[in-house]
Amino acid sequence: MSVTAAQGFSAAGLAAGIKADGSPDLALVVNDGPGTAAAGVFTSNRVKAAPVVWCEQVLGAGRVTAVVLNSGGANACTGPEGFQDTVATARRAAEVLGGRDAGTVAVASTGLIGVRLPMDRLLEGVEQAAAELSADGGERAAVAIRTTDTVHKTAAVTRDGWTVGGMAKGAGMLAPGLATMLVVLTTDADLDAGTLDKALRESTRQTFDRIDSDGCMSTNDTVLLLASGASGVVPEYDAFAEAVRAVCGDLAGQLLADAEGSSKEIRIEVVNAATEDDAVEVGRAVARSNLLKCAVHGEDPNWGRVLSAIGTTSAAFDPDRLDIAINGVWVCREGAVGEDRDTVDMRDRKVVITADLASGSASATIWTNDLTAAYVHENSAYAS
Amino acid sequence: MSVTAAQGFSAAGLAAGIKADGSPDLALVVNDGPGTAAAGVFTSNRVKAAPVVWCEQVLGAGRVTAVVLNSGGANACTGPEGFQDTVATARRAAEVLGGRDAGTVAVASTGLIGVRLPMDRLLEGVEQAAAELSADGGERAAVAIRTTDTVHKTAAVTRDGWTVGGMAKGAGMLAPGLATMLVVLTTDADLDAGTLDKALRESTRQTFDRIDSDGCMSTNDTVLLLASGASGVVPEYDAFAEAVRAVCGDLAGQLLADAEGSSKEIRIEVVNAATEDDAVEVGRAVARSNLLKCAVHGEDPNWGRVLSAIGTTSAAFDPDRLDIAINGVWVCREGAVGEDRDTVDMRDRKVVITADLASGSASATIWTNDLTAAYVHENSAYAS
Repeated sequence: MSVTAAQGFSAAGLAAGIKADGSPDLALVVNDGPGTAAAGVFTSNRVKAAPVVWCEQVLGAGRVTAVVLNSGGANACTGPEGFQDTVATARRAAEVLGGRDAGTVAVASTGLIGVRLPMDRLLEGVEQAAAELSADGGERAAVAIRTTDTVHKTAAVTRDGWTVGGMAKGAGMLAPGLATMLVVLTTDADLDAGTLDKALRESTRQTFDRIDSDGCMSTNDTVLLLASGASGVVPEYDAFAEAVRAVCGDLAGQLLADAEGSSKEIRIEVVNAATEDDAVEVGRAVARSNLLKCAVHGEDPNWGRVLSAIGTTSAAFDPDRLDIAINGVWVCREGAVGEDRDTVDMRDRKVVITADLASGSASATIWTNDLTAAYVHENSAYAS
Repeated sequence: MSVTAAQGFSAAGLAAGIKADGSPDLALVVNDGPGTAAAGVFTSNRVKAAPVVWCEQVLGAGRVTAVVLNSGGANACTGPEGFQDTVATARRAAEVLGGRDAGTVAVASTGLIGVRLPMDRLLEGVEQAAAELSADGGERAAVAIRTTDTVHKTAAVTRDGWTVGGMAKGAGMLAPGLATMLVVLTTDADLDAGTLDKALRESTRQTFDRIDSDGCMSTNDTVLLLASGASGVVPEYDAFAEAVRAVCGDLAGQLLADAEGSSKEIRIEVVNAATEDDAVEVGRAVARSNLLKCAVHGEDPNWGRVLSAIGTTSAAFDPDRLDIAINGVWVCREGAVGEDRDTVDMRDRKVVITADLASGSASATIWTNDLTAAYVHENSAYAS
């Protein structure tokens, strides 16, 4: 049920002393092969942390034999020194793993930015993690990458003789400091880097890219997919892509459920859009409306705030033909008052908002959460 | 110091019974001439309230002899019936003001959307307001357009024999329900509609358009400028535009200072940008970062959140050359750690964030406020 669910992987997680409170903060995931193919997707923020810049270079060659992840420090905006720290981390891991190529060791970091990592402790932690690697270490690795996550997050699916597993930390863009999402996926299917890349991009586009908890984008977001080929099975592309999507969807749901300070999970379904891009644009605009997110927190079916968010987009629609449902009640019909808003029951943690653009047949779903005083509290008190 | 500061205007404000709590909710501003030239700018939201649609038609002819404003209901998303309500309001005002042309009566509304206005009470209120018009009624009019504004907002400047005055309600996009900004400006300068339009657009672009309290956009935003010509003075364009800008800037500052739930006013100065558009894009991205707004609330000089917001824009900049100052302390130099963040004093209500893009010589300033638990509370409890 984790990064060690697939054959050919071992992992470890421990407290290296990077976090001041002594909780686990270092994870190591090792691909024991025989294959080393890998793919990655990264933040689209133009301000990228050192480990992201490093990983983009590593993934250029399509091979990853190990991943070092740390919480307790993002190593972002740390200048050339920070970049050297990342490289030193990859080198130490390569060395203690029996002379691997440092250029196949990915690194991911999360925590406060603008602060150098305590490299002595981190490098010692890498050595210790290498000594503690085990085929059931996936859960401990998942625990070690948490920041303000209240639970660790893992998932796995097994198909005809092959498995896709993974772990994640973060809460969309909601975690404080910078809100990084780190994900490592593993599989024992035997596939090349190009196939992994295609499946990973398709899956993230429909899962992680569609959760938007507070509209903020991290400098450190990293999603990696490593294939060991240890099952000896070469699955059909469609079956493999479906499995990756299933694991990504599972992890994305866990991220959202654990979003900081949230009391509601909001599913925004945009239907009958002219194009999928339109549907995504509309869903995202609604997901980013602080006024709407406050209203949902207050269990107020304030459909006007949905409409006003839609009105800021460039999507094809006629304002007089928009229909909006909240938890199945069509409170807005043709841009005006619809069914009685007092019949909407919003007491459940899950809330579904449906926007019918009446402009075509495309659709998309965006997931977000409500805006709460707890979010404000956690994100105003973090650094102090 | 209000819409009646300029010669040739009278106004009234009273409680017509539109609001359930009996507080003032109807304002009337009348241009007694001799001139009737006017200009207006409106929300760019594609979902527009009935009074906005009506005003856009009225302003097409460049003449306004009166403005009826109500709080207690936005008359947005109310279908064809809502539009008829707006027209009926203009007609009643035209009638009771001695047979004016209804096509010269502007209407503006603010409050909850998706709810019809109580037209009996509103129309009676219009009659009563017409009977109570006075040359010192500007303050009462400003009081009557408040929703959750804690103070009413007026401003005026007098130049060589002519005056520009005005009133405003709202808090950028921050007020609940939909957060409408309504502004009426008056002048006794003798200018044509084209000149008014040019001055108004230039001024709003640099004032109201650059306050962004929560990124949300109303269906009802309306800014009107009426000229009576009663002073008989035809000012130079530049002098007039400066005066309009001064009044707009004053009112914009008052809106921000009264932003719901805010504890900090944040001035985001973007300097050395390649273009003014780049500077505005960057300033707005920073102003819309919930994480940054929470950090400022917590008096945390978390410059990483500024950097990560800048990284989401398409502006010209090199991440390794970005400098960020908070209250004058350059906490980030060349994209990395700068001066000691512990020396930043953020206790004052006003906070200045400076972002130096090192890419040119253009600049822009965006004003916003912090994100607080009080904001969440006010906007989650509003409709209930």
